[in-house]
Formats: sequence, C-alpha cells, structure tokens
Amino acid sequence: MKQREVRAALLGATGAVGQRYVNMLSGHPSIRLEVLMGGESAGKRYGEAARWLFPEPMAEEFAKKIVRVARPESAKGCDVVFSALPSEAAKEIEPGFAEAGLSVVSEASAHRMDADVPLMIPEVNSEHLSLLETQQRTRGWKGAIVTTPNCTVTGLAIVMKPLVQEFGAEKAIVTTMQALSGAGFPGVPSLLIVDNVLPYIKNEEEKVAKEAKKILGKVKSDGRSMVIEPHEIPMGVTCNRVQVLDGHTESLYAEFPRPVDPSEVVRAFEGFRGPPQKLRLPTAPTQPIIVRKENDRPQPRLDRMSGSVPGMSVVVGRVRNGIDDKSLMLTLLSHNTIRGAAGTAILTAELMRREGYVG
Amino acid sequence: MKQREVRAALLGATGAVGQRYVNMLSGHPSIRLEVLMGGESAGKRYGEAARWLFPEPMAEEFAKKIVRVARPESAKGCDVVFSALPSEAAKEIEPGFAEAGLSVVSEASAHRMDADVPLMIPEVNSEHLSLLETQQRTRGWKGAIVTTPNCTVTGLAIVMKPLVQEFGAEKAIVTTMQALSGAGFPGVPSLLIVDNVLPYIKNEEEKVAKEAKKILGKVKSDGRSMVIEPHEIPMGVTCNRVQVLDGHTESLYAEFPRPVDPSEVVRAFEGFRGPPQKLRLPTAPTQPIIVRKENDRPQPRLDRMSGSVPGMSVVVGRVRNGIDDKSLMLTLLSHNTIRGAAGTAILTAELMRREGYVG
Amino acid sequence: MKQREVRAALLGATGAVGQRYVNMLSGHPSIRLEVLMGGESAGKRYGEAARWLFPEPMAEEFAKKIVRVARPESAKGCDVVFSALPSEAAKEIEPGFAEAGLSVVSEASAHRMDADVPLMIPEVNSEHLSLLETQQRTRGWKGAIVTTPNCTVTGLAIVMKPLVQEFGAEKAIVTTMQALSGAGFPGVPSLLIVDNVLPYIKNEEEKVAKEAKKILGKVKSDGRSMVIEPHEIPMGVTCNRVQVLDGHTESLYAEFPRPVDPSEVVRAFEGFRGPPQKLRLPTAPTQPIIVRKENDRPQPRLDRMSGSVPGMSVVVGRVRNGIDDKSLMLTLLSHNTIRGAAGTAILTAELMRREGYVG
Amino acid sequence: MKQREVRAALLGATGAVGQRYVNMLSGHPSIRLEVLMGGESAGKRYGEAARWLFPEPMAEEFAKKIVRVARPESAKGCDVVFSALPSEAAKEIEPGFAEAGLSVVSEASAHRMDADVPLMIPEVNSEHLSLLETQQRTRGWKGAIVTTPNCTVTGLAIVMKPLVQEFGAEKAIVTTMQALSGAGFPGVPSLLIVDNVLPYIKNEEEKVAKEAKKILGKVKSDGRSMVIEPHEIPMGVTCNRVQVLDGHTESLYAEFPRPVDPSEVVRAFEGFRGPPQKLRLPTAPTQPIIVRKENDRPQPRLDRMSGSVPGMSVVVGRVRNGIDDKSLMLTLLSHNTIRGAAGTAILTAELMRREGYVG
Repeated sequence: MKQREVRAALLGATGAVGQRYVNMLSGHPSIRLEVLMGGESAGKRYGEAARWLFPEPMAEEFAKKIVRVARPESAKGCDVVFSALPSEAAKEIEPGFAEAGLSVVSEASAHRMDADVPLMIPEVNSEHLSLLETQQRTRGWKGAIVTTPNCTVTGLAIVMKPLVQEFGAEKAIVTTMQALSGAGFPGVPSLLIVDNVLPYIKNEEEKVAKEAKKILGKVKSDGRSMVIEPHEIPMGVTCNRVQVLDGHTESLYAEFPRPVDPSEVVRAFEGFRGPPQKLRLPTAPTQPIIVRKENDRPQPRLDRMSGSVPGMSVVVGRVRNGIDDKSLMLTLLSHNTIRGAAGTAILTAELMRREGYVG
Repeated sequence: MKQREVRAALLGATGAVGQRYVNMLSGHPSIRLEVLMGGESAGKRYGEAARWLFPEPMAEEFAKKIVRVARPESAKGCDVVFSALPSEAAKEIEPGFAEAGLSVVSEASAHRMDADVPLMIPEVNSEHLSLLETQQRTRGWKGAIVTTPNCTVTGLAIVMKPLVQEFGAEKAIVTTMQALSGAGFPGVPSLLIVDNVLPYIKNEEEKVAKEAKKILGKVKSDGRSMVIEPHEIPMGVTCNRVQVLDGHTESLYAEFPRPVDPSEVVRAFEGFRGPPQKLRLPTAPTQPIIVRKENDRPQPRLDRMSGSVPGMSVVVGRVRNGIDDKSLMLTLLSHNTIRGAAGTAILTAELMRREGYVG
Repeated sequence: MKQREVRAALLGATGAVGQRYVNMLSGHPSIRLEVLMGGESAGKRYGEAARWLFPEPMAEEFAKKIVRVARPESAKGCDVVFSALPSEAAKEIEPGFAEAGLSVVSEASAHRMDADVPLMIPEVNSEHLSLLETQQRTRGWKGAIVTTPNCTVTGLAIVMKPLVQEFGAEKAIVTTMQALSGAGFPGVPSLLIVDNVLPYIKNEEEKVAKEAKKILGKVKSDGRSMVIEPHEIPMGVTCNRVQVLDGHTESLYAEFPRPVDPSEVVRAFEGFRGPPQKLRLPTAPTQPIIVRKENDRPQPRLDRMSGSVPGMSVVVGRVRNGIDDKSLMLTLLSHNTIRGAAGTAILTAELMRREGYVG
Repeated sequence: MKQREVRAALLGATGAVGQRYVNMLSGHPSIRLEVLMGGESAGKRYGEAARWLFPEPMAEEFAKKIVRVARPESAKGCDVVFSALPSEAAKEIEPGFAEAGLSVVSEASAHRMDADVPLMIPEVNSEHLSLLETQQRTRGWKGAIVTTPNCTVTGLAIVMKPLVQEFGAEKAIVTTMQALSGAGFPGVPSLLIVDNVLPYIKNEEEKVAKEAKKILGKVKSDGRSMVIEPHEIPMGVTCNRVQVLDGHTESLYAEFPRPVDPSEVVRAFEGFRGPPQKLRLPTAPTQPIIVRKENDRPQPRLDRMSGSVPGMSVVVGRVRNGIDDKSLMLTLLSHNTIRGAAGTAILTAELMRREGYVG
C-alpha cells in the first residue's frame, strides 16, 4: 500500500536555515511544503520577504506563497511542522503546535535536552523515537516534539557512532573550524572574520558534548516511561569560527581500550549504514560516511556537497593513529545547514512517516 | 664593560622570512646587519630584488645594498649569519659558513634534529647552547650552527614549558589553524584557500612533535659529549591552514597526573620568564606569555602583535579544564614570522652574544 | 541528415582552464574529447596528473586516460584541437596542428590579433569565420587556427554588441573587478590578495581594448583576402583583481550620439540573440544576456552560474543613465572560465561544425 | 601667543567611527577629548561599552571614562563636539549643541547639503568656513555646525582639486571598490561578501557626486549671505563593496579641454598643499597626495597607512592617459575611517582653532 504524502508547514521560513528547507523540499517526492510561517514577514509574499541566499533561484511555487503568522491555525491540515525558529521563540511557540496535533520537527535547541524529547539523527539513534509515546502520555499531546541536533554535533555524532559501538571509544577531544552560515544571517560581521579566526562560539562547546552523549545514549524503560541513558564518553570540545561559507571541519582525537587499526576504522566508516539507508528514504545518502584517502582532504569547499544526496554525507579524511596504537586522529567535514540542520530534520520526518509516527 | 656590536649577514634575504629579518634588524641596538645574500638576486640592489611584503617601507640603508652571492667570503668580517634559506639549500650552504668561523643561526629545518645542534627558544632551553662545545670539537669548526624551531612549534613549546615543568603535563593533543605566511611566498595559491580550510600541511605534524620534545629535553653529558635527552610527553598533532595572513592559532588539550586549577596555570603563564627577560635582551618581550581573560581571545588579527616587543609574546586564552580536573584546554596564538621565525633567531643571537658565544 | 560527432583533442589539459574543458565536455552530445595532451604530465594518467580544482569529481572516462605528448601525431584522427596552452607555448605548438589538418580552437593570446585569424564570440561575430578561407590559402594549411578572446573582454563584447549596433555607442570606459581563477593556477598568491585589491593585471588592459575592437569589427574583402576592419570606439580600461573565485565583474560607462532610455537598452539586452541561439547549439544559453532588476545585482557568487547553460550567460544589472541622458552606466558579470574561456571555445567548435568548417 | 587647548566632546563614541576618534585624539597636542557620549551605553565605562575594534589597546584614560547621555549639558565646558552619529540621530541632536554654543564638527550626512553649512576638507576648501557667519546670523546660534564629507568622496575630492583647478577637468567617471569598515559595525554580514563583490551601496553614488561638487565649489556673496556655487563638472559614479577591511580604492577617468601630460599631473599631485600644510596642523600630512610609480600600486593593505600622519594621505597610482591625450585615468586609495572620517574632522577642528572659530 502506498503511503500518502505528508503535508508540511515551516516555522521561521525566511531565515537562512528556513531557506534551506524551502530549497531542499522543492520537488520532494513524499513531503509537500504547504505553509510558510514567519514573524515580521507575515502577510508578505515569500519571494519578497526572504533575502534569498542561494545561487539557484527560489522555486516559483514558494516565491508566490503568502507568509502566514506563526500559530497552529496557520498550519491546519498539515501533519508536520519543521521549525527553524531561534531557541527563545521555539520554546514559546512549538508546544502549541504539538498540542494541536502536529509533529514538530525542530532544529531549535529549546527542547533538545528534555528527557522525553528525542534528539534525532536517523542513522544513529532511530530507536529514540520510542520516547514519543512517553512524551504524548505525559504531556497529554496528540502531536509531539522531535528535535535535531546542533549543526556541529551532527557530523561528529555520525562519525563517533561506529567508533563507540565497534571500537569502544572512551575519550574524544574535538577542535572545530566552523562555517559562517552556522551563525545564521546576518550572523558574523565581516569586519570580525577577515584575516582572522574567532576562537569561541557562545554556548556551542557545552551543546556539542551534551548532545553527543544523548544521541549516542541507549533507550531504557524505567518502568513507567522510556528514558535515554546518555553515553558516558568524556569529551573535550573547542569551537572556532573560520572564513568559510558552508561546512564545519572538525579535528577529532579519540582513545580506545585496545589497539585500533586505521584501515579497519576506515572499513567500518565506509560500511556504516542506518535505517534511512535500509528504507531508502529520499534524503538518505547511500553512504552516510565517505572516506577520502588523499592527505589534504576533506576540504570544505571541495567536499561539503559530496555524496548521493549532496551535503548529507559526512566526509572523513586523514584517519591515522594518534599518540599510540590505542588512539586515533581524523578530520571530518559536515555541511552545517544540510546534514547539520534542514537535511537531518527532513530525514527525520521521512523516517517518522515510514514508521507510522506521522501522516 | 660594554660589549661590541655584532656584525651580521643574512642568507635568503629576499624571501618572506628574510624580509622579516631586515624589518626587525633595522635600527637594532647591538646587531648590525651588514651583508644581504641571495641566489638569483645576487648583484641587484636589495630594493629591487625583494618584492617587499610589508606596509612600512624598506629602510633606505637596506634598499641600496647590493645582494651578494651566498658564500662564506661574502660574509667576511661578520660574526653571525642568519639563515632564512629553504631546507635543501641550508643543508648544503650553512656548514661552509660554520667552518669559516661564523655562528650560523638558522631558521631552516635541515640541521634542527642533529644531535649536536641546539634547537633554541631562549626563554625555554638556553642551556642547550652548551651543545656547541661538542659540536665544534666533533666537527672541527671554529664557527657553529644553531637552529630555531618550526614556526608552529615555537609558541606551543613556550606554553608547554610551564605546563611540563610546573604541572607535569603528560599528554598533549594539538590542532592548529595556521597563517598563510607560514608557507612563504608565493606559498598558498589564493584559489586553494578562499572559502576553504586546508586540513594538511606537509611534514608539519611530525616536525611539531619531534621538535617540541627536543626543545623541552634535558642536556646531559654522556661522558665525552653533551647530548639532549628529549622529553617523553606523547603528542598528537593536526595542522590546518586557514585564511589568515599572520599568526598561528593552536588549540591545546593536555593531561596531568594531578588535578590542575586553571587559575594557577594562568598565574604560572603570566609569571613565566626566561634568561632573555632577566638579561633584558633587546628583542625579549617583558612577558613571553600574555593571558587574555575574554572568552573570544586570542584572535590572530587583534593579538598577533601584542606585547612589549610586538609579535614576540605568545597570547593564550580560554584556559579551562578539559574532560575533568586533571586535564586542561586552551587556545594559543603566536606570530609565525616574528616569534616563530626571525624574532626567535635574533633573540638567540642576542643571547649568544651575551653569553660569549659570538662577537 | 544527422551530422557525425566531432572528435576532439585538448592541449594543456591539466591546467585550470584545461580542467574546465574536461568538465564541460563530459557528456557533450556532439563533441567527443578523445585525447588529452600535456607537457610534464605526459605519460601519466589524467586523474593523477591534474590537481583537480572542482567540487564535482572528475569523470571516470577522463581520469583513466593517459596524457599524451603535445604534438600533432597524438591527435591523429581528431577533427578539433582545443588549446588551453599559455601564450608562448601556443605560438610554437599550435601551427603544427593546423598544418596537420586540424582545426585549432585556441584560448591563448598568441594568434588572436593575427590579421587572418578570427577572434570568435559566436553570438557576436559568427561571420568572422569567413577569414578562414584566406588563412588556409595564405598559410597553405589544411587545418586552421581560430581563437577566442581574453576572459575579460568576452562578457564585455557581448554587452557592447547591442550598445554599438542598436544605439551607436561611441565611447566606453570600463573598470573591472576580476576573479582569481582568471590568473590560472597557482596564479595569485593568497598573501597578496587577502584584505586587498590588486589594481593592475599585466597586459590585460591593452588586450581588452584591442580585442573588443576586433570582435566588434566588420569583415571586408580587400580584393584578394577577407580582413577585419576593427570598430573605432574609443575605450579606456582599468583592470583590478579582487578576492573572488570565479566571475569577472565590470563597471561600464558608455556615451551615445543621442539620448538613450535605459529601459530600451534593457529590452535590447533581453532580446539579444545570435546564431548559436538560432541553431540551438548545445552550449548556447537561451539568453546570452540576462538583466537583473534588483539594485544589488549582479553579484559574482550568486550570478556567475546563471542561465540555461550555467556560466554561459552574461548577467547585467544597474542599467541607468550616466552623467546625462546620452550616457549609460551598468555593471556586468561574466564567468571567466566558462563564458570567458572553455565555454566560448566549445561554442565556437559547435558553430564551426554546423557551418561545415569541421567534422 | 600660545593658543589654549581645545576641549572636545564626542557624540556616538562607541561605534566604529567613534572609536577611531578616540584612537586618534589620544595624546593630541591641542585637542583634549574630555566627554564621551552615547545612547544605550550611557552610564557605562567606555572600556566596557565599546567593542574595541583595533589591535592597539584602548588608552586607559578613555577606558575608565563614564559614557554620558547625548545632550548639550553633558558637553558643558567643551568648545567642540565631534559627531559620529548616524544621520537620523544627527539631524535631531546636533542643532541643540550648536544652539548651546558649541562648534559641532559632524561626520553625519544630515546637514552636509544645507546651504549655510560648510562641507570641509581643509586642504581643498578652507575658505568655505566663511559660511559660518551667515549660518550663525540666520539660525541665531552662538555655536555652529560644520560637516565633513562621505568617506568615499573625501579622497576623490582631494585628487580632483588639482585636476579641476590646474587642468580644468570637465568630466569625471568613477568606479569604487570600498572597504567593509565603511559600512560601520556590524555592517556587512560575512555571508554576503566572502567570494563576492557587492555592486551597490545604498545612497552612496548620489552623495559622492553632490558632495564633490559642493566641496569643489566657490564661496560667493549673494548680497546678504555667503553661499556656495557648486562646481559644475559632470560626474558618473558606481560604488562597489569588496572584501577589504580598510581603504577605499577608486578608479577615476577624467576628461580635459586640452591635452594633459601624465607627468605634469603627477607633479601637480606631488606639489599639492593646502592651508593645513602651511599652518603645520598636527593632523596634516606633509603631502596630502602621494604618487606611487609602480604599476601595481596603490593597494589597500600596503598603502592605506601611508604618509607622515598615517592614513591621512591619499595614495595615487597608475596615472596615464585615457582614450586619448585629453583624458586621464588613475587609481586612488584613501583610508576611509581616517582621511575619510575622523581624521578630516579633527583636521577641520584644528583649522577652526587656528582661524579663531573655536577655543
């Protein structure tokens, strides 16, 4: 039996991440983006309200849509609401949509660490969706809130999954070189970043460590409810901003209880698959992790759009032992507004649809 | 008794690092740069031969000098030869100068790891100069070769010195974000670095680890000769190139046998002094390590010229515990062509002069 | 009757412009790139010899080709040779191919101003191909040399064509802001362009003026031979390099004998078509000139890949009167390695094939 | 007789231009900056209120000052008020200060084109200060408002002065490549300018043309009042933003009634002096126009801080004939926040002090 199309709405449609949803959902085979919602832009045509940031032109069907006020009635008839809201607004606005029966898939940090809210990367922790039953029961909602992680942790958690699961990684030290688009629009003033590196991103380091542990955690029942037991791997994180448009580059050092052979790690990365690949979801790349063998890769400009669904694969390179044969170093690259934002949210909605959570 | 002025020559005078020597030695109180040597540029006026890279104009006294052929006779009457040669040329050319009785202070990597050649950062390992007696005896030279480290390791080793000595650091994981000038001129093509990060610098990671261990090592006598026993701290190093003109930024994670209090580390950094400070050498900054308390510092553009001798202080920020109270994370910044090249070489010559090795 | 496929060879295959040919000819419907030729890279696989500069991977069919020595025998059986050689090499090497019966379509400046060599932009001066008869007769060649213009003049000449033809433009003052890829690879050192503008490009300004006048000139018979009578419009040109990867932006001021209405000029631009459009050549964009109405366009990053054949349309914006109603100012943008190099050469080969000059 | 020190206040002290005043007035020999005024920052210490944008640290004397509310009482006892306010605020706030007896020297555009307000570049139109008598009489003010031009027109008008006066220039076509700091802070988002050129700056082109004509105009008496008769030279202006931190580069094409010899023009530029040079005002560079002979100069990064008062000299290069011997082309560079803002305002105050208008 063919599943019906999911009808979707979008909160925060005019911003940088919002535009990425519009860009990626244009022509989607099973999700139809019907409603665009905004704040000050409500009432205007989307084509006028959004300062379009992509070289490829905005699809005509969206350009002429009128941006609606961000409230549940605007999304009437929809199944899913994607939220590209800033955290404060998300906290206030998203629960109303869940209460009204919609599945909120949110990019905002507001609810990520709530005990009954899944923090999803479909390849990594699809089983976390089972929290939703607890969430709906406890909160008395017909809909639900599902979140996706911070843009910096997404690529990292995908790479850590096989390291933790197959090799028992027990320590991770990460230094990031993050793209400008990670700060949204207008974001980083050009006067601050030309001929410069910014060695700090507010609240980012804490998020990366906490979210990675939740994502890599196990679902358990405590008798009444399903809960996540976070992974206990100690993580040290340093976040930097560099002059790159898109694509977060991350340098990872990890330790293991036993010697690890880099070529085995490469095989594990290349063979890594999750439910989205098995289900052939539309936004699932055939290979979630691509490994480059050249010394000077991954590079953000050359590799950020890699893979069968451009921008959805994490590209890893320079896999080598670290200080000894029980440690490993590598560099990973992940597109921060595709895999790190809109792409993972859309993939989550696709998974929810296939597993009967929406639509 | 007033010491006499040191007469200096410069090998590789027209390149990017060579120009920095000319820039820094202009008006030096105790070193007079008398001879500029080059390869293809020999015979031309320096003002024509060098594609001058600094905003401040070239000093007139140097602009009119004729570049000489790179051989010992050209430097007759000089005490010291600074070498800004590429490694291959250094290997071939420098020994002749040492044999002819000159003290070669070399920025090249050619001789850095030779057992009888000191690898100097005057604040860190002034006692390594005692290798020179062995070197002169063994090689039968009247002069000598002294080297200074790779631009990336210099700032790092200065910061590691108090961590190792006072806190017993026993592991170091480093990720660098290095400036374009570190690759010399023409160096990195603009087409490779705009909107990009290069995740690899050839031979750099090995050098950083090996050189740091030698610099932090102890001088010992093996009966006949003085030798360096390298420090044994395990180091993991990842080197990246970013779009910054000058100033290498480095993210350091370190582990310790006992809990370390970041505020005590900050005090140790701020109180760190070496022989150059005690001797008030002209190129010695009053504070080799400056600590910034703001979250978003150090930044290369704002901090690379910090300190009483601009570019000679390492600027450290974001000092905090890492994964637990026995680990530490921090960000350091060091001017790669001043502290990381010409400045440390000049400071080494100043130290050698005061300790009677030259002049 | 279906025309047969043209078999093509490529001189200078590993360089930046050479790679663009490989990129654009991959999957071409009527030109099959069979032979890749190089200098030092001869004998290696193309996949190893070329430091590939594009995000999209090199087509497998080319990666495995062995680069051949740059001489006519290497291209035996081919109809056309595209030349991405530097000017010196072109001067020496290209005539041999023409003599051997191949049609050389050359991007090099070596032969552009030769009296019997067409300097082609197919939309602008397709009739200049009639020089070839004279060329073959005079030089005694079975083949021929056809050239395409400097990357900076190509977009400009396309825009000037309707200005000259329909409005009688009689003076043109141009200031360019040119992309880094225009200087080839390695090209502009990053140390020169970060936080900077380079106000000069060697030999560029003279080429722009001279070539524009030839391109816009008329073919005449002087009795025995066909010759080009250059257009006489006075041109003042200033060329600058800015920190942009691809896409030359040019600011044009033009004067006319009569008042010009910007909206009429816009209509003329939008309606401009040449033989490639009429013949529906594969690399012909449906609209050679696209006009943007927003104040802040064209922008290189957003607009360089515009049009039905990405990178082949010139994008014009800010069309307005200048100092009075008899002058005009506008900004134009043209992709320098597509429309300004490989694309125009391929389009020229397509035109020559359809008009019976090759294949 | 020694003139007494001028006591100064500053409106808009915390912004990018405000900071430049603080930077330049630190240690000034005859102007003492006593009062810093701001909007939301009123009540805070300046050291905390300003996000300091310069590498050199903020002078201690200013760091500890309390920012005051922007009203005339705050500046009691001062002679001069420098205004770095945005235009809207300037329109509202500045007249109150003039009424209260202070001389307002304003960088804002609000009053620049008022008939009785001088638009000053001391080297170019010192005689325009004679408007002040009319201004005070008509408006009934004890104080006065004097303005300085837009950052883009300042360098241009200095260069045009000898072209107009000595060579009778009768047409000027200008294309600019402007620095990021010209847009203030936060100003241009980095996402808009990386790998890009912005071909439009709002309201800028109109200002450049109108202000240049006023600055180059003659003071005349219409019987009752002094008025400016604007210069009539037709000007066509195109303004672009490029990825440069400081320093506006401008390409100028000019026409003349008679042939002009570029070497004579160079001599006129080099010999150009104004009253500030004759009076040896502290902020007057010995040479207002510096001519570089190299083909590839001026460059913003290398030349923006040229001259005896860094940033106050306009650097000109590439002086050559244009389309014929009656036209000229050149490139000029002017530091937009020094010569183009704070520096010219301070120089104006110095001139007013020496000519008895203040203090």
